[in-house]
Formats: sequence, structure tokens, C-alpha cells
Amino acid sequence: VSSTEPRPATASLLCIGDELLSGDTVNTNAAVLGRRCHALGLPVRHAAVVRDRIDEIVLALRAAANDADVCLVCGGLGPTTDDLTSEAVARAAGVGLERDAGALERLEAKFRAFGRAMPEANRKQADFPHGAQTLANPIGTAEGFTLALPAPGAGACHVFVMPGVPRELKRMMTEQVEPRLRARIALRPIPRRIYRVLGMGESGVAQRVTPVLDQARARSPGLAAMFVHYRASMPEVQIILEATIGPDGAQATDAELSSLDVPMKQALDPALFGMGDAELAARLLAALRRAKLRIGTAESCTAGGVAARLGAVPGASDCLDGAIVAYDDRIKRDLLRVREDDLKTHGAVSEVVARAMAEGARKALGSDLCVSVTGIAGPTGETPGKPVGTVHFAIADAEGTEHRQLLLRGDRGTVQRASELWALKLVWDRLLAQGHATIAQMSNGE
Amino acid sequence: VSSTEPRPATASLLCIGDELLSGDTVNTNAAVLGRRCHALGLPVRHAAVVRDRIDEIVLALRAAANDADVCLVCGGLGPTTDDLTSEAVARAAGVGLERDAGALERLEAKFRAFGRAMPEANRKQADFPHGAQTLANPIGTAEGFTLALPAPGAGACHVFVMPGVPRELKRMMTEQVEPRLRARIALRPIPRRIYRVLGMGESGVAQRVTPVLDQARARSPGLAAMFVHYRASMPEVQIILEATIGPDGAQATDAELSSLDVPMKQALDPALFGMGDAELAARLLAALRRAKLRIGTAESCTAGGVAARLGAVPGASDCLDGAIVAYDDRIKRDLLRVREDDLKTHGAVSEVVARAMAEGARKALGSDLCVSVTGIAGPTGETPGKPVGTVHFAIADAEGTEHRQLLLRGDRGTVQRASELWALKLVWDRLLAQGHATIAQMSNGE
Repeated sequence: VSSTEPRPATASLLCIGDELLSGDTVNTNAAVLGRRCHALGLPVRHAAVVRDRIDEIVLALRAAANDADVCLVCGGLGPTTDDLTSEAVARAAGVGLERDAGALERLEAKFRAFGRAMPEANRKQADFPHGAQTLANPIGTAEGFTLALPAPGAGACHVFVMPGVPRELKRMMTEQVEPRLRARIALRPIPRRIYRVLGMGESGVAQRVTPVLDQARARSPGLAAMFVHYRASMPEVQIILEATIGPDGAQATDAELSSLDVPMKQALDPALFGMGDAELAARLLAALRRAKLRIGTAESCTAGGVAARLGAVPGASDCLDGAIVAYDDRIKRDLLRVREDDLKTHGAVSEVVARAMAEGARKALGSDLCVSVTGIAGPTGETPGKPVGTVHFAIADAEGTEHRQLLLRGDRGTVQRASELWALKLVWDRLLAQGHATIAQMSNGE
Repeated sequence: VSSTEPRPATASLLCIGDELLSGDTVNTNAAVLGRRCHALGLPVRHAAVVRDRIDEIVLALRAAANDADVCLVCGGLGPTTDDLTSEAVARAAGVGLERDAGALERLEAKFRAFGRAMPEANRKQADFPHGAQTLANPIGTAEGFTLALPAPGAGACHVFVMPGVPRELKRMMTEQVEPRLRARIALRPIPRRIYRVLGMGESGVAQRVTPVLDQARARSPGLAAMFVHYRASMPEVQIILEATIGPDGAQATDAELSSLDVPMKQALDPALFGMGDAELAARLLAALRRAKLRIGTAESCTAGGVAARLGAVPGASDCLDGAIVAYDDRIKRDLLRVREDDLKTHGAVSEVVARAMAEGARKALGSDLCVSVTGIAGPTGETPGKPVGTVHFAIADAEGTEHRQLLLRGDRGTVQRASELWALKLVWDRLLAQGHATIAQMSNGE
């Protein structure tokens, strides 16, 4: 397919491996490849998963070559008899397999670097279909490869084959495959904007943003052609604006899309907690770093999950002091200095105790700011007036203590995850209100 | 396809939705359906993901009907114009869509129960292909349905259509679809045994278990036909033994497979940490409950992740006291009473500090048993002799304190996850050694 054709290029995914069909492995590779293609402006129209059987792989490759300009293949590049992808691609292309002397040398060098003798079985990882170009894998033994597969008509389907190990795949996709895609295919990336909201349902979100979007559509043909997609992945709802190309060729620019940030924030206040891919925890730590503030947590129903989310961010030690997980009420008393009376009178899940936990943690940990979480994650534990999902939060800092009560829905895991995100969001909102963060900073980790 | 045919029945999956191809959503539904089918003895041979385009859905349905006895479809049952699955199935079957009066009534009743008027758009959720049988959805608006799709030859493909919302799908699969599959298709469930190992590579694991498996194969034709699969999902490696049906029809029994537990445990000692699906944290809490012991954690590089894993288990409050997350060294000194001298002389990532953390947490939290974790999760922080991935653990209880140092591989997230699992596993090993747990208890949550 020539790059001068007006039809936009499309991709197809082919993931190979019995473990993907038996459900032993969740196919995160397909999501990674889909996301990268989408960002490149190369929409994925079809994905298939097949077993480690050569005939089935060949059939799926031929079907992909018929349908798409690009076929991204992953899995089956290992050293065992189950690994049949190279042979299948060769068969689909009508060529033979050839041992690549350079690849064999690189493979042997990798084993030498591990201090191990290379087993005989691994030699086949240096066999590639005739005419294939290899793709470097600096973090694993399996090199990938690319080959043009004949397609109906005069064209060809660009096949890229990558290993199934997620981190090797991700790196090969970004470092080896994407530059080649950009060079070979006319791509038109689709600008998109993602607004991330906590604590609202899809329909409520739609109601709030529809007037903003209607106004925007009237402003330019590009914005009029914009595609709006709501995606609920509890406890979060995302609003995705995509600069789809309209029937008249109009397409919103990045600047046009980002001009919607402020009105969208206003419409979604206070539920908006982020834009784009930037993780809330990373963003929060960046804001704390700028403000030279250190944070600690006091956790009951989340049992350390809020602190762990902060600790997952590289460089967390710049701002994270630690946490007191007071799962048992005894710990709330002994380490957070919550008063026995308050626990008895109000219960552990109450405003009084949440406030005392945040303030007690601030004293015990010596942090500038502490956030507390105490709630009923379920499935049991509800009391009259306190259903499962009742969660109290408090934030204590030099300016005082603020409290928030929420009723979160879902099973135990969902309530815990939602509580963790809400704790981070409430801290973010406080930093925003105090001028330690800005709306523009909601979209990246800086 | 008649159930008296010798060929075992197979299934095909079809997941519908643009968000699965753009990578916005990871396709966990396919894994859930694959796992359930596998357990039923209905192997999935192919899975496809297509966009919300009627022609593409119809093509994929026809391809599935040609290839498999059962096609499980998910997604596209909502009320919006994007939801086209019912229409596509009708078209593939060559029948019309019909409004189901009973389904409409149930739908209206659901909205009444929510206290909301039913939008006009939702009426289409009561439209099903002529001849379809509906499948109840007690937790969502979208009912599913099943229909026989004509297949080449005399047979038919049993199509089951479910909503894409994961929890609705899961429930409809187990409550509605599986009983119908068992009634309609001759299934022969494949007994399997999963051994879960931490801290060893695939090849090391294979070397240890091969003699055990070779001996087993010599014992019976069923065991000889057993299929062995190694699966690495770092930091874990699983050994999956499946009672595949051999060429002579021999198949290992459940009892034959479970007779391998003790020799497998011996061969894999001390790396084996579990069998089957039972989560280590749940198993650990069950053992603590039986032993009437309470647990606490002292965490540095995992920042609360160990406590959060315990807290994720329903009923954790029976045994979980809490945690002190001492991410900053000041907290190690102030709350865990680690000596300033030891921090200076040995560094925070050292045996001395790990031991002091576990013992200090035991005093501060008043727990029977405390486990500590202190390590270098990366990407930065390594010092001479302490590369990224160096992690020290200690467990303190009434019998004393034991220590373990490990070098874990991978990026920050992998090192943190591995550290969390290792902390739980070391506690499990100690309970095992103390007689508070048995090998048999490694396979379930009891």
C-alpha cells in the first residue's frame, strides 16, 4: 500500500500464545500496542489471539495482511519447541528460515554477559525469515524482526514481530518499530485530551461537559469534528476528546483542544483530578517537591495503600516521610493519640477520628502535611448509619485540618482503590487551593 | 456439532469495542472467559477483538461459527448508537431483531428501582435476535442472550452474548452461560495443578522438577500424558501440570496429580510459596487466625505495600494490627527505635537495620509477629556493594528474629512487588517451620 493513498493506514495486532487463551495471562501487550499505535495516528482495526500452532499462526498472518497495512505480532520468539512465530512468518511470506550470523553472535555475547553457556535450544533465536531485518532487544535474548508480507493487489503488509515479554515488547515497540513506522507510512497523529474524574457517574459527567463541548463545536470546523468518548473504569471516569478528521478534512489542533482545559475544569469541579496519563501520585509528589513540603499518611481501611502509591514513584524519598497504618483501633490510640473516648463515642469511622488521625500522624511523623483515611471497605463491618463504603478523610497541615466524608460504591477492592485515589486527590486539591499547584500542572508529572 | 462426536468441543472469543483496540482498556474479559472455559474443559482456540462496526462484527461472528462449537461474545449491549452487537448477531444469523416484552418490563423495573426515569435510548436493550434466549443480568441493565448460529455442515455454533462490564460479564458467565454449556456440550474438565515459585528462573525451576515429573510419568499412562507448562510472570514462576488426554485416551486423575504435591514441594524448597489460585496474603491471614497470632509490618522500600496486601483480604482485622512505614530514616529512628549509629555504620539497607526495624515495630505495634523490609528499589540509590534490588527482610516474634537478604531483579515496580511477596512468603515459611501451617494448606485459603 503506497503512502500517497488517501485512505489512512491501519494496523492489526496478532498475539501468539496458549497462555493468553487459557486466561493464565491477561493480554496487556495488546493494550500497550494499541495505545502506541493510536498515539502514532495508526488506528488498530482488529486484534487476534491464536495458539502456538503453526497453521493457525499462518492463517492469522494472512488474514492480517489482507486487512491492514501494518501487522504487529508478539510472542513465540523464545527458544522452546512451542515458539513458532519466525517459522510461521516465513511460511506466510513463502520464504525459508535462515540463520543470521550476526544475530547468533549477539545472542552468544548476551549469554557470556550473564556468565552462562548458551543452551543449544537458543540457537534457533538467531533464525529469521529470508529478507527480514532484525530489531534489537537490549534487555532480552529474543531479537525481533520486520518483513513485508505480500498483500492482495500491488501492496504489502509491514509485519513487525516482537517478543511477548512485556518490558521487552514495550522497549522494542518504541525504540525499533515506531521510527520505522514513521519512516515507511504516512501517519497523521490524532491529538487527544483526556480528563480524569473521580466520584461521578458517566451520565453526570456528560451532563456537566455537554454545554462546554457544544460551545466549542461552534467555534471551529476542527472542534466540530471532535469525537467525545466517556469511559468508566471505576472509581474513575475519563472524558476523551479526540481530534478526529471530519468529513471535510477539518481537524482540531492541539492548541484548540487544550483551550478547553479551563472550562472543562470549571465544569467538572471538584471531581477533575488529572489530565492525560500523568499519575496522580507522581504529580502530587512533584507539587510537594516544588513547595518543599513533606508528606505522611495515617491509614486504616487502606492499610498502607496510599503510602504505597506514593512510594511507587521514583524519587519519592524527596517528599515522603512514611505512614502509620492503624488498622487496629489500639494502634490509633497508641501511635496516633486518638482519644479512647472519641473511638467509643463516634466510632473509628467518623470525622472526629479522621481528624485526630491526621493530626496525630503529623505529630508522630513530623511531616508538613498528613492525610488520614478511615472507612468501611466491606464486605462486613457496616453499622447503623454507616453503610459499607463510608469513608472519612482528613488533611492536617500548618494551616489547619480539613475533613471530607464520602460514600464510595463497589466491592472491598474498589472501595480501597477509590479511597487511595481520593486521599491523593484531596491533598492535590488542597495544594491547588493553597497555590502550590496549578491546573496546567494537572496534565504532567512536572 | 453433536455432543457424541469424539472431537472435543472448542470455543472462540469475540470482544467488541473501540476502547479495546485503542489500548484505553486492557482486555481482562478475555482472560476471565478463557480461564472459565479452560476450567470447564472447553479450550479456547481463538480470540478476536473488533471495533464497534456492524460489518466487522458480522464477519468476525461468521468466522467464529466456522471454527468453533461455542462463541462467547462480550461488549456492545449498551443503549448508545455505538452498541451494535444484538443487531450484528441477528444479521449473522439471518434473522430480524424483536423487542422482548418481558425484557422491556424488567428493564423498566430496574430504572424504577434506581428511582430514575428510563431514557428512550435504553429501550433498544430489550431488542434481541429472533429465536434468542435472554440471559439474566441482576446487576446491570444489559441482559445477555444466546442463539445457535448456523455453521457449515449440519451443526451450529452456540453463541452467548454478554455485557462488557467486567463484573456483569463474570456473573453472567458463571450463573447463566456455564450451566447451559454443561447441558448442551459434552465437556471433559481437565484437572490441573499449579505450583507457584518465587526467586527462581524458569530454567532453574525446570531442572529441579524434571526428575519428579519423570518418575511420575513412569507410574501411569495418565501421568505420562500430563502436559507441563512453565510460566514466568516476574517475580513469580508457575509450573502448571495439566491432565491432558493422551493419544490412548488416558488422563491423570485429580488424586494422581495431587500426589505430586509433596515431592514437588521438596524439589522446589524453599522457593514454593503456593499452589493453585489462593493468594498468599489470604492464606497467611488464615494461618495467623488459626494460630491466634497478630501481625504488623515495618516497611521502607515497599512503603506500605506489604500491609496493603494483607489489608486487601476480607476479615484482615482479625489478625492485622497495622504498620509503620519508615520511608525516611528519621522515622526509622523516631518510631522504630533504630539506632542512629547503626544507620550511619551499616546504612538503612542492612541486616542490622532490618532486624532493628522488625523488633522496633513489634514493640511499637504490640504485635505477636512483625516483618520488616528495607531495600533499594531503584532506579537510583545504589551504593558500593549494594546494587539496586538489594533487599533485607527480618521477622521478629516471641521466638526471636530471623533475617534474609535477597537480590531482586527488575525495575522499581517489579522490585517492590517482589519484595512484598517475599515478605509474605518469609512469614509463611516461618509459620510452616513453627507448625502453624502445613503444605496442604498452601493450596487454599482455609
